[in-house]
Amino acid sequence: MSKEIPVAVLGATGSVGQRFVQLLAGHPWFKVVAVTGSERRVGKKFSETCHWILSEPMPEYARDFKVLPTDPAGLDAHLVFSALPSGVAKELEPNFAKAGISVCTNAGAYRREADVPVLLPEVNADHIDLVPVQRRKRGWSGCIVTNPNCTSTGTTIALKALMDRFGLEKVFGVSLQAISGAGYPGVASMDILDNVIPHIAGEEPKLEWEPRKMLGSLVNEEIQLADVTFSTHCNRVAVSDGHLVCLTVELGKKASVEEAIAALRDYQAPARSGSLPSTPKPVIVVSDDPGRPQPRLDRMTGAGMTTVVGRVREDTLFDLRMTVLSHNTIRGAAGGSIYNAELLVNEGLL
Amino acid sequence: MSKEIPVAVLGATGSVGQRFVQLLAGHPWFKVVAVTGSERRVGKKFSETCHWILSEPMPEYARDFKVLPTDPAGLDAHLVFSALPSGVAKELEPNFAKAGISVCTNAGAYRREADVPVLLPEVNADHIDLVPVQRRKRGWSGCIVTNPNCTSTGTTIALKALMDRFGLEKVFGVSLQAISGAGYPGVASMDILDNVIPHIAGEEPKLEWEPRKMLGSLVNEEIQLADVTFSTHCNRVAVSDGHLVCLTVELGKKASVEEAIAALRDYQAPARSGSLPSTPKPVIVVSDDPGRPQPRLDRMTGAGMTTVVGRVREDTLFDLRMTVLSHNTIRGAAGGSIYNAELLVNEGLL
Amino acid sequence: MSKEIPVAVLGATGSVGQRFVQLLAGHPWFKVVAVTGSERRVGKKFSETCHWILSEPMPEYARDFKVLPTDPAGLDAHLVFSALPSGVAKELEPNFAKAGISVCTNAGAYRREADVPVLLPEVNADHIDLVPVQRRKRGWSGCIVTNPNCTSTGTTIALKALMDRFGLEKVFGVSLQAISGAGYPGVASMDILDNVIPHIAGEEPKLEWEPRKMLGSLVNEEIQLADVTFSTHCNRVAVSDGHLVCLTVELGKKASVEEAIAALRDYQAPARSGSLPSTPKPVIVVSDDPGRPQPRLDRMTGAGMTTVVGRVREDTLFDLRMTVLSHNTIRGAAGGSIYNAELLVNEGLL
Amino acid sequence: MSKEIPVAVLGATGSVGQRFVQLLAGHPWFKVVAVTGSERRVGKKFSETCHWILSEPMPEYARDFKVLPTDPAGLDAHLVFSALPSGVAKELEPNFAKAGISVCTNAGAYRREADVPVLLPEVNADHIDLVPVQRRKRGWSGCIVTNPNCTSTGTTIALKALMDRFGLEKVFGVSLQAISGAGYPGVASMDILDNVIPHIAGEEPKLEWEPRKMLGSLVNEEIQLADVTFSTHCNRVAVSDGHLVCLTVELGKKASVEEAIAALRDYQAPARSGSLPSTPKPVIVVSDDPGRPQPRLDRMTGAGMTTVVGRVREDTLFDLRMTVLSHNTIRGAAGGSIYNAELLVNEGLL
Repeated sequence: MSKEIPVAVLGATGSVGQRFVQLLAGHPWFKVVAVTGSERRVGKKFSETCHWILSEPMPEYARDFKVLPTDPAGLDAHLVFSALPSGVAKELEPNFAKAGISVCTNAGAYRREADVPVLLPEVNADHIDLVPVQRRKRGWSGCIVTNPNCTSTGTTIALKALMDRFGLEKVFGVSLQAISGAGYPGVASMDILDNVIPHIAGEEPKLEWEPRKMLGSLVNEEIQLADVTFSTHCNRVAVSDGHLVCLTVELGKKASVEEAIAALRDYQAPARSGSLPSTPKPVIVVSDDPGRPQPRLDRMTGAGMTTVVGRVREDTLFDLRMTVLSHNTIRGAAGGSIYNAELLVNEGLL
Repeated sequence: MSKEIPVAVLGATGSVGQRFVQLLAGHPWFKVVAVTGSERRVGKKFSETCHWILSEPMPEYARDFKVLPTDPAGLDAHLVFSALPSGVAKELEPNFAKAGISVCTNAGAYRREADVPVLLPEVNADHIDLVPVQRRKRGWSGCIVTNPNCTSTGTTIALKALMDRFGLEKVFGVSLQAISGAGYPGVASMDILDNVIPHIAGEEPKLEWEPRKMLGSLVNEEIQLADVTFSTHCNRVAVSDGHLVCLTVELGKKASVEEAIAALRDYQAPARSGSLPSTPKPVIVVSDDPGRPQPRLDRMTGAGMTTVVGRVREDTLFDLRMTVLSHNTIRGAAGGSIYNAELLVNEGLL
Repeated sequence: MSKEIPVAVLGATGSVGQRFVQLLAGHPWFKVVAVTGSERRVGKKFSETCHWILSEPMPEYARDFKVLPTDPAGLDAHLVFSALPSGVAKELEPNFAKAGISVCTNAGAYRREADVPVLLPEVNADHIDLVPVQRRKRGWSGCIVTNPNCTSTGTTIALKALMDRFGLEKVFGVSLQAISGAGYPGVASMDILDNVIPHIAGEEPKLEWEPRKMLGSLVNEEIQLADVTFSTHCNRVAVSDGHLVCLTVELGKKASVEEAIAALRDYQAPARSGSLPSTPKPVIVVSDDPGRPQPRLDRMTGAGMTTVVGRVREDTLFDLRMTVLSHNTIRGAAGGSIYNAELLVNEGLL
Repeated sequence: MSKEIPVAVLGATGSVGQRFVQLLAGHPWFKVVAVTGSERRVGKKFSETCHWILSEPMPEYARDFKVLPTDPAGLDAHLVFSALPSGVAKELEPNFAKAGISVCTNAGAYRREADVPVLLPEVNADHIDLVPVQRRKRGWSGCIVTNPNCTSTGTTIALKALMDRFGLEKVFGVSLQAISGAGYPGVASMDILDNVIPHIAGEEPKLEWEPRKMLGSLVNEEIQLADVTFSTHCNRVAVSDGHLVCLTVELGKKASVEEAIAALRDYQAPARSGSLPSTPKPVIVVSDDPGRPQPRLDRMTGAGMTTVVGRVREDTLFDLRMTVLSHNTIRGAAGGSIYNAELLVNEGLL
């Protein structure tokens, strides 16, 4: 299978859209054949209408695309990646699913729907089994598959490794999130230079619910939320990419620091998703350096797909404390959607 | 009483030392008559040997001081402010206390000594009563009075307001600390630009113990630590001044968000310390803006002496969550020591 | 004269508008009686509709203002300060001037009009004599008085001091400009974190022309541009406030470094503008520190109204090199307009 | 030739040393067999004593090296890369050259020696002919070959392309330099956050002289400095990597903007150095985007070896203006020394 699957990127000019365009440049299975954008960009050349903000250069293949409207009509692809804003996603993504096109989306609009999986293949690959359910219930020949919010991503991966071995009861989490998580133009420079913004609208509820869905079990075509309570604070800091989360956890049974580190280091993606092109290798890196992980130094671990954990130590109130880092626009957004699409293909669901 | 009390600043060329020099410029009671520094600076003109890093200009009064050695001999002052590094403080501060000079220090060297108060006058002014005990036990005519670590400062002030009204059992705290807290040169720019450092050596034990001493009771000449358990994560972020702490607290009895806000807003410094020149007015400001407090916008509230609290909200694991900001080199360091000295003077202990 | 002159701020919710509101809080002559804003803000409370970005708190006096439309009708003030965007200023400012209201504006829309002064009172106070000309020609009872672009401000003040004593022929200038110069939200954080933007649309032509008008002579009711050639590069850097400009100048006659420093230090505002409330004291500070001026350390010199010059040294191609710093939203914007208004009042032109 | 040439890195733990270690990991010709460090690090494991600051991870090959003293005795390599500080380099580099080891150094200690080439292979590959002269004069069997200061690097490459076609008379240059140029810990974060430092000790003289040597001609075993006058200002800005230089140039004969862009785009490295592993491909990129080059977006062009030029436009005082960007620790330091070493090997001079 090499570059034979045509795909499109919806909302390709924004910060996550650009990440899709950049990451798909080197993808072994997928070949981008079209990009879509908002009305004022339709018909323009991608390289002219897109204010490129990634430090990696705009791929040559994308420069001359004419931006299309976000519409399934005439689209010669059975798979699209969506970087649409949530409101637009809510309205337009079903049009694709109805038209037989599978949507791997970074948008949050459908994450809370019972028949829509929120998918991290290294965590809950089996939730992909919701796709046939979704198709049957909605009468769609395509589907919508979501990845979680960027902050939920690394958090859930680290917690999954611990939960599998020791159980999990309570999680206290405080995030220090990168500005790229807010899109472009997103955070004004006057708001973040020499500053922290101790609030991100709508973020805490996501971080307190999405991991429960992903850590939950699919039983009789329904996901039972994991019985874990989350309490969070979300902050924006002056970092370009890489969300850091301070976690304090109460496990189902006691674990020493060494046992916890072993559980994190040993963690393997489930067999169904473990050998896909985007499977992080390894899934989790645990740093011994007391000052790591750091966004600038560690975000590109495993090409930005690996979750990096450090400072694993005992806690005074719960069981363990640790710091988790995940690249928010790669593993936590575009890279995550691509990984999901690979699972979809691998399962024969495309 | 106007500018009649001669004082000296020990370790005046570092970042906290400079803050002492700057804040004392306008002080109504204290007049700086000498500054001390490390061996290589002794004899040099302050304005020439000190690499000034504050955005406020170096006060005129200090420019021509010759830097003295850190030695009580010949010092014409009964009160000194210490910005010495902890190791040096441990060795040299007792020399002053023995020589009849009271030391109001920002250094941590003696904070854990039973007869040395860790003082925030708006919280535990009565702990100043340890001074006579200390003098008697050690045979000193001077004394050592400490202020807490900068991160403990705002945290303890906010917690005190809640504890007084509702009791306090457990505290989760995650700090986002400014670079000025590490002194000068301190944090290398390569380490913090586009980055977070998720560890500050020795900081978490301080933040988990110092508030317990300050929130504790002085009974029979001994401080009984408050029976509160703290769990913390300390992070360094790219902010010049102002430490932000995300707090989640379990109280002794339930309190609504409104009741908690009222407790914070109503909080008054004890009568013994409530009308000193540095008493913050008000002690605590509670912001209604969901995106505040922010270091750049709020650190100078009350001339940098007021603690700013925001985002007071219910919690899912404990009772309440909130964000606390305090200026780390003013309220949390030099300004705090000056406030302590004012209490010392007011109590007739100089 | 104390607080008796009622004024309004046009476009009060933007970054320069906020600076007007903040600086006028303590002004001895002017009392803000109204603020205006764009259509979507009209009728709202200032404190609720304005996203305040200054580190100084929003003044109490302004919090409860209802935002008015930008219209002279019903406005009880003969003087307004304009922080309108240039396009809006072009359309609306004349309405005020016609209605008998004098407009001291930071907008650039009218700077190139022959009968509109571009005014820095410490440089070209006599250009205020264009006001009666403007009134006569246009039939206005009010007037429009502009201050220059923020980057032209410090540059022109420093050059004026040199030109008066040695003449001035050629100027190379490279700016490193603060983000607040772009307004709010202005520069996206993704564009400036760990970055420089080597271009500011429209800025170089301003910096190459405006100083020539201000350094020019008013002869027979017309300004003759100074015969000086400017060549510039304008860059945006990650600084909150304070524009730095590297200048290399060819003078009319040779001057030693010492003579140049003396000319800068000795420079006095013209008698007509030298004792107004906003007159910088001193007009220019020359730093001896080879690493100064620096934006963070020096921008607030003279309450942000003083121009700071440093690194005065010989040049290899022209005569002299130096670095100039000026606070771009105080001296270079709102503070400059207020200073202009003071001159207008002092000249009896209100 | 594949990985058969053993090399060592002198001063491997600093910021440029780390860059050598990182870049040599994938080098087709060179294999690092040893690293040296200062006395306090000798005998320690590289991965334990080196505070790694690059965002690329420490290469596996280097982790277990024991740090050696900086001494040729016992070193099994005929080529070393030096990242030594200038003072140390001055003393120790000749020891290697005497011992038959060729030193490709980033240090500036020997750049002004008449028989030591300052080499940018894409500019002055022929200056390598000084190596036999140096060996003969000094009786060395090894040699010292330097690359220029990081700020001179991109500047000289861009100027060479223009000079070859139009001649070159005068250059006005203002740099905005990254913090990594100052090594580690280098610039204190308190000095650069929300700030610019308008001075870098010793930098301007280098930038005004080194390009003249590299643009000069080697005649009768001597380099005749190019007859070009430089005038510069050097500034430090809050950027991690990538030095930006604003250039204004007077050419030998007039050139239009289009002709200048063509000269830059057409520029080829000399045949002697044009097909080495590190030869930038292309040597120069000219951006059409008016807001480029930008450090964050463009520094990695051509794996950090390509010089990026933008904003080529007419000037008012000289002929042309433009902005030049070069990665200061890759093309401007370690990558440059490696490129020099490749030329040395290719010329049979090892």
